[in-house]
Amino acid sequence: MASKAFYAVIAGVGAGTGRSVALRFAQAYPVALLARKPESYNDIVAEIQKAGGQAIGISTDTADPESVKSAFEIIRKEFPEKKLAAAVYNVGAGFAVKPFLELQAEDLSASLASNAGGLFNFAQATLPGLLDSVEDAPYPPTLIVTGATASVRGSNRFATFAAGKFAVRALSQSLAREFGPRGVHVAHTIIDGVIDIPRTKSYNVNEGKADGKISPNAIADNYWYLHTQHRSSFTQELDLRPYVEKF
Amino acid sequence: MASKAFYAVIAGVGAGTGRSVALRFAQAYPVALLARKPESYNDIVAEIQKAGGQAIGISTDTADPESVKSAFEIIRKEFPEKKLAAAVYNVGAGFAVKPFLELQAEDLSASLASNAGGLFNFAQATLPGLLDSVEDAPYPPTLIVTGATASVRGSNRFATFAAGKFAVRALSQSLAREFGPRGVHVAHTIIDGVIDIPRTKSYNVNEGKADGKISPNAIADNYWYLHTQHRSSFTQELDLRPYVEKF
Amino acid sequence: MASKAFYAVIAGVGAGTGRSVALRFAQAYPVALLARKPESYNDIVAEIQKAGGQAIGISTDTADPESVKSAFEIIRKEFPEKKLAAAVYNVGAGFAVKPFLELQAEDLSASLASNAGGLFNFAQATLPGLLDSVEDAPYPPTLIVTGATASVRGSNRFATFAAGKFAVRALSQSLAREFGPRGVHVAHTIIDGVIDIPRTKSYNVNEGKADGKISPNAIADNYWYLHTQHRSSFTQELDLRPYVEKF
Amino acid sequence: MASKAFYAVIAGVGAGTGRSVALRFAQAYPVALLARKPESYNDIVAEIQKAGGQAIGISTDTADPESVKSAFEIIRKEFPEKKLAAAVYNVGAGFAVKPFLELQAEDLSASLASNAGGLFNFAQATLPGLLDSVEDAPYPPTLIVTGATASVRGSNRFATFAAGKFAVRALSQSLAREFGPRGVHVAHTIIDGVIDIPRTKSYNVNEGKADGKISPNAIADNYWYLHTQHRSSFTQELDLRPYVEKF
Repeated sequence: MASKAFYAVIAGVGAGTGRSVALRFAQAYPVALLARKPESYNDIVAEIQKAGGQAIGISTDTADPESVKSAFEIIRKEFPEKKLAAAVYNVGAGFAVKPFLELQAEDLSASLASNAGGLFNFAQATLPGLLDSVEDAPYPPTLIVTGATASVRGSNRFATFAAGKFAVRALSQSLAREFGPRGVHVAHTIIDGVIDIPRTKSYNVNEGKADGKISPNAIADNYWYLHTQHRSSFTQELDLRPYVEKF
Repeated sequence: MASKAFYAVIAGVGAGTGRSVALRFAQAYPVALLARKPESYNDIVAEIQKAGGQAIGISTDTADPESVKSAFEIIRKEFPEKKLAAAVYNVGAGFAVKPFLELQAEDLSASLASNAGGLFNFAQATLPGLLDSVEDAPYPPTLIVTGATASVRGSNRFATFAAGKFAVRALSQSLAREFGPRGVHVAHTIIDGVIDIPRTKSYNVNEGKADGKISPNAIADNYWYLHTQHRSSFTQELDLRPYVEKF
Repeated sequence: MASKAFYAVIAGVGAGTGRSVALRFAQAYPVALLARKPESYNDIVAEIQKAGGQAIGISTDTADPESVKSAFEIIRKEFPEKKLAAAVYNVGAGFAVKPFLELQAEDLSASLASNAGGLFNFAQATLPGLLDSVEDAPYPPTLIVTGATASVRGSNRFATFAAGKFAVRALSQSLAREFGPRGVHVAHTIIDGVIDIPRTKSYNVNEGKADGKISPNAIADNYWYLHTQHRSSFTQELDLRPYVEKF
Repeated sequence: MASKAFYAVIAGVGAGTGRSVALRFAQAYPVALLARKPESYNDIVAEIQKAGGQAIGISTDTADPESVKSAFEIIRKEFPEKKLAAAVYNVGAGFAVKPFLELQAEDLSASLASNAGGLFNFAQATLPGLLDSVEDAPYPPTLIVTGATASVRGSNRFATFAAGKFAVRALSQSLAREFGPRGVHVAHTIIDGVIDIPRTKSYNVNEGKADGKISPNAIADNYWYLHTQHRSSFTQELDLRPYVEKF
């Protein structure tokens, strides 16, 4: 079911999950892609347009409330009349892996701001639109939030990163409990493994076995599936890991 | 992707989830349906056959190892040459809700036998076949196990039922960790709400709101989705609840 | 606060945790010690008596309801007039670590019977007495249940053992929710490490570091602490692990 | 075991848990009490001194790294030669209960700063001292962190508060995994109920039943107990709730 009357917005596009999610949702909706720098979205916008889809890219720092507000003003201008069907928060900055006493206060604040702060701003900007689409959207309006192993486990040397990811999970749960009964599906995912993207090409994980890294296209399929779930059976938290991953 | 070279087996069919799952998987595979009594599967078998599918029903007590062995001997005769693509354990007996001191030892043993014992027998009977299909099945061979709220929460007055469901979850996790790396997808679901079936017609849940009970067809769609997940991104545990459910 | 008007009962005494718990609670109460064989409790009974305490040992198979009933008849004869202050379920049989397809149905039923079945019987036998002591016992009457890593994690090759331990945890939660509000403290512990007992002497864990195995006396201190918690702040689940344990 | 060669520091003292914890630890050690305003610690300092103990109060904003550094400079001057035995982080600001769309970005940043930021600063200031005491302290040096129901559950209308509390839990887990093996006990508590303090006097919880609110003295006893646990059996997370609390 594709619709031109609705759009999707994806925050945190780049070479990995965000790109795949953008391409997947663009098969059904015009998409607005947010990233801090144009080089993160330019190619994806072009790729979608080439395939006959509709896409815009907007340079946005989701950690900055003003930047997010400004992005959505642009979206409203670019997509007049369109209503919001789906919003994906896939921003993953603030990654620092260090002994605790070597971490700086800035490591913590960066992780909290980019993870929790960014989701907060993004959710405040998208939830009114998602609520507004409950009656007539093709699927239950959906907010999907990308999490990680560090969302449920504070590992040694991951203190600040886990703090940000735990906080994101808290927000997601709270939003699910508040907005679910109003018809908006809020889902949080636990990506429990290394994603197969250019940056991780050299990583040797799971003994180099085939499909030992998570395919970003597979993640995108899962996100699309979450979006299309019937409202009588919403999933709140989805774990995803390679078949060979230890857990 | 439909295949006549593979079959699916569903244990615990009846008027609810099992029926919907059977119909869903029958769109792709011949199916073997197990239930204790013919009246639980006869109509479903007929419905599938009428729609052009292939189905057999076998009276089976999954809590009894001999009964399970006998069922799979029949399957091998009825489906010679076919390999196993998916197995669903949906047996849900042993339900007793009582103050603890009114429960009998039999309430516990019935819950443990039908839930954990049945899954144990079913998994022992199906895992060799699932392993054997890893190389050539249309999707990663899959064992899906139905759980409930009581799988993760021992509520007041649910002692014996929760004991059975917790045990099922333990088995599912252990199987996922052992057989995942060998290519078999083992998933456990948390059905967190009342399913909309004939038996629950009169239940007033979630203030009678539309879709306040879980659609068994939606559960079936979710199970099919789990079956088709790419092996680089298996879900181990899937929670499903109505948008209006408190949790 | 020691009392001769109350007694404690410990099921599953032997060379390890049970012995230490027995000695610890015997400092405050007469104790009844249950084990399958006299050689498991004889020395402990003697040790307690030598130290001026009061102890009886009763050969009991907690997995057998009749055996448990008979044990408590003996207790009532041996400890006439005494009321029950604390009950500890520390039975840990059913341990099998094998690939799933090598496990037998008997491995599962043994684990379920000794873990969940035994706790069921023990709880049914002790909760009436614990309830009866709420008004006048020196501390809130307490039922403590020993769990393990396998209570919260179904590891590869631990299928049947985890099933039994998960089921025990379910029962414990349900009992805590039912009997807590009536004044009985039900606590479940997660012993997450190897206990330092004769049987594990040769185990090389945590690189052989000092205190890398859990001291059974330390467990006993923790159990006594749980027993003495104020009823405004009960702990339901207590994890215990060596400082050097990976988790 | 009391020692004048070691001291304890408690951040977040006031009329409730912090006061009780301060009084409890002051029975064994000189204590440094941190709070934003002198009126939060003055009476406690006086009470401890009157009882023959040793205490200092320092106005500190734990959310501010400079303020924390300055506080520990004062401590080193006031307690020259003393080593750190225990540190308790009990700061609980950032509480806002509102529909998500009424929350401001400041509500989130206040919760993250006071909860996670404060713990980060406090842990960086205390862990070197705790490590330094491992060899000769009377008990394993301990960092205890106060959590709440919102540490493990993102409830409706608690989005920003839960974000802060989840983040604190992440930090605590990560610190436990890093510093446990080096001999420092890091424990996180889940205070699951209303604490019985002046501010909650009028709250009607648990139907007004006796001990239906958590006694701050009982919390203090639990904290002291955590501090004294043997290093072969550390508890990482301790839940505490009134016997009548629903959970």
